[in-house]
Amino acid sequence: MPKDGITTREHDYSQWYLDIVQQAGLADYAEVVKGCIVFKPFGYAIWELMQRQLDDRIKETGHENAYFPLLIPKSFIMKESEHVAGFAPELFEVTHIGNEKLEDPYVIRPTSETIIGHFYSKWVRSYRDLPLLINQWANVMRAEMRTRPFLRTAEFLWQEGHTVHVDEADAERETLMILHEVYADFAEREMAMPVIRGLKTEKEKFPGALRSYCIEAMMQDGRALQSGTSHNLGQNFAKAFDITFTDQNNTVQTAWTTSWGVSTRLIGAMIMTHSDDEGLVLPPRLAPIQVVVVPIHKNEGEKSAVMAAVGALTAQWKGRLRFKIDSRENLSPGFKYNEWELKGVPVRVEVGPKDLEKGTVALARRDMPGKAGKSFVPQEGLTERIEALLVEIQQALFDRALQFREARTAFVGSYDELKLQIETGFARAYWAGTSEDEKRIQDESRATIRCIPLDQPGVAGICFYTGKPTSQLVIFARAY
Amino acid sequence: MPKDGITTREHDYSQWYLDIVQQAGLADYAEVVKGCIVFKPFGYAIWELMQRQLDDRIKETGHENAYFPLLIPKSFIMKESEHVAGFAPELFEVTHIGNEKLEDPYVIRPTSETIIGHFYSKWVRSYRDLPLLINQWANVMRAEMRTRPFLRTAEFLWQEGHTVHVDEADAERETLMILHEVYADFAEREMAMPVIRGLKTEKEKFPGALRSYCIEAMMQDGRALQSGTSHNLGQNFAKAFDITFTDQNNTVQTAWTTSWGVSTRLIGAMIMTHSDDEGLVLPPRLAPIQVVVVPIHKNEGEKSAVMAAVGALTAQWKGRLRFKIDSRENLSPGFKYNEWELKGVPVRVEVGPKDLEKGTVALARRDMPGKAGKSFVPQEGLTERIEALLVEIQQALFDRALQFREARTAFVGSYDELKLQIETGFARAYWAGTSEDEKRIQDESRATIRCIPLDQPGVAGICFYTGKPTSQLVIFARAY
Repeated sequence: MPKDGITTREHDYSQWYLDIVQQAGLADYAEVVKGCIVFKPFGYAIWELMQRQLDDRIKETGHENAYFPLLIPKSFIMKESEHVAGFAPELFEVTHIGNEKLEDPYVIRPTSETIIGHFYSKWVRSYRDLPLLINQWANVMRAEMRTRPFLRTAEFLWQEGHTVHVDEADAERETLMILHEVYADFAEREMAMPVIRGLKTEKEKFPGALRSYCIEAMMQDGRALQSGTSHNLGQNFAKAFDITFTDQNNTVQTAWTTSWGVSTRLIGAMIMTHSDDEGLVLPPRLAPIQVVVVPIHKNEGEKSAVMAAVGALTAQWKGRLRFKIDSRENLSPGFKYNEWELKGVPVRVEVGPKDLEKGTVALARRDMPGKAGKSFVPQEGLTERIEALLVEIQQALFDRALQFREARTAFVGSYDELKLQIETGFARAYWAGTSEDEKRIQDESRATIRCIPLDQPGVAGICFYTGKPTSQLVIFARAY
Repeated sequence: MPKDGITTREHDYSQWYLDIVQQAGLADYAEVVKGCIVFKPFGYAIWELMQRQLDDRIKETGHENAYFPLLIPKSFIMKESEHVAGFAPELFEVTHIGNEKLEDPYVIRPTSETIIGHFYSKWVRSYRDLPLLINQWANVMRAEMRTRPFLRTAEFLWQEGHTVHVDEADAERETLMILHEVYADFAEREMAMPVIRGLKTEKEKFPGALRSYCIEAMMQDGRALQSGTSHNLGQNFAKAFDITFTDQNNTVQTAWTTSWGVSTRLIGAMIMTHSDDEGLVLPPRLAPIQVVVVPIHKNEGEKSAVMAAVGALTAQWKGRLRFKIDSRENLSPGFKYNEWELKGVPVRVEVGPKDLEKGTVALARRDMPGKAGKSFVPQEGLTERIEALLVEIQQALFDRALQFREARTAFVGSYDELKLQIETGFARAYWAGTSEDEKRIQDESRATIRCIPLDQPGVAGICFYTGKPTSQLVIFARAY
């Protein structure tokens, strides 16, 4: 049953998303700062959980964190020709300090390849210094024409990894390792969001990269959302910023670099993957509150008995579950249920006088609204039961999203089929066209090649657009 | 024994500090971005440990994190008259996006009272919304005349808490709670840095505050370093940004706000409190590496025996100790000792063939260089022994710093005594002067009133400067 304040997905998917963000208290438009939002506490708490998980993976794979300046000399951006073409229109420029006009203006980092490249050229001397594996957690700014909370905001938060390698093979190994072991693993295990791992086409790659890899997820309107990218930058930035090293034969070599990032956009991806017409749905592993306990009582006598039982039931939860006991006065249980449903809390525990008599509690699953997700279970063993239920919900969300994607993905053999398919989902298609062909298809259909999946069937076919034989299968979709 | 690359404290304290920062690999000057530094991995790792500890304390005391825009409309800064006077000369101004000139420029936040005040005026409606307790981890920028890594940098990282309260008493309670339970407790327990908790004078308070409280620490040259501030902002920002609420009688009231922050400056404070002429000294609780194990061997046979022993000794350390096994080839043990001493690792474990025969290892304490801190201990029970030793070192560093401060603090009864005392430490003095008197003393002696300690003797005396009777004792010192 749809809720007050939430437009249904069927009626207006775009408005549904905005309603979820607002009703769950995730973000607020910062209308006084163009294109920016405020990350409200509940939205930021999701980001903190994401950060912790990503940071663990980044460190486990051998990287260290560092922090480079927010401002970049504007001249740096100009040093890599594709890079400047890609970013110049979006740059926030600092021209004054106090009342003093700067001779050489700065820009707020839109991404940090250039400023980090500058330092790496000083730090890297010998092959012994390589690989250099550094990550940065930071805010970045890029002007956006149209703001959508988390998905498109002028300022966003992200991590950007920047690494230096002795050769192409090592840079490529790093680029793919990050794609698989950090990004795809995080998306699927923590966000319960299935992703397609693929290579970007020349047209869609990062400005300045040799090759860009990505993970792409399907939202509930069938559109794609690029959720993370990992770039083999080749020697482009190393040449622009003079990152060289002496090899084992004492010969000076130009290094190879990579960069890779995921951002607060992932919050938007997660919202759109799992939520429903009743509000936010969060996978347990990234839910700031995994379990809410709502005590039910009509008088002081009931209250003290119920609260005592709640205290006993939750006594062992600290450190094991992220939970909240909603003992607010003057609010009905129904009001509280509604609020925690809006906020996507995976499991609700209701404890009332009747439960005390029976030695039970009521459990409600957020991912299965209504009766289907409600059960009455013994108080004994409740902690373990909830822990198991959270694992089950996490898996159920992933399975549901995967089934949804598979049901909405189809092979297309003609342009007409493609145009129809991308109205509702992903089109798999043989492709042997050019960047110009891609551009034309985008102009006509608003669909882009999301990626060339790494998992290829290995069977040749005919490009639906050029009629050429090819073994390359790609994914077309409309995208966020 | 002083080291290559490190100027002694006695010879040039200021250069000693810069040498420590460089030799320990904590930071790099970012000469291309005026006044900025790069936080190198080892320096940033210290900040991450600080963040984790501070964040835990901030959350335990009831606050949530959020994130507000980096940019602030310049007009906002102008709304609070003391605030604009304090910050205008230091502002980094954004005037263009892409090629488009902005009609209303932005500034990069020097601190966020104004932009957060703007949102709070929208969020706060009723007394039920209060207290509103939010913290932000962020980068901020303020132009600095003279850069010193961590201590004075144009961009720095910090947390800034911003809270809203129904009345002055609740705002004051919050301001003092943060000072004691978050900042002073963190400084003393985690940083092993004793601090004086006090009130700032009118002259030294935060621009726009009603009252500013601070923690002040003594560095090894006897100068003071303000290490954290907590401000009761009164109704100044609430009035400027219209933060009002309806109270229980349905009357509209102006709210009271607080703000409080600590920054990456704490890294500088910690370096200068504990380090010596041989390099960085880190308190174990904030050391990215608490224990380094250096295996010693002359041939392959010794190596495999020693490495097997090292593996067995460290098998239970993961999750209990932050440690590193330095098994780098082609570097002598002596070279390694030197490097980890420079980096301030609290405990070094040396394991060689003779240790295997005897069932011992050699332990070296960084806080006690040379023979005094070296001991040979049984391999059995090593983990517990090291854990206990880390606790002991943490306490020893605190005790040493406290003794140092007490030895360098003296009561002064005259201006001449004060001028002499502040050459080497803190002067405690009765004070009944004006802000103009303070200014004159600063111009003449370069000393300022660091704070009016909260811990007052309660005995009246005579102001050394005005000759007036007063019961107010203050701390004068030269400061960073």
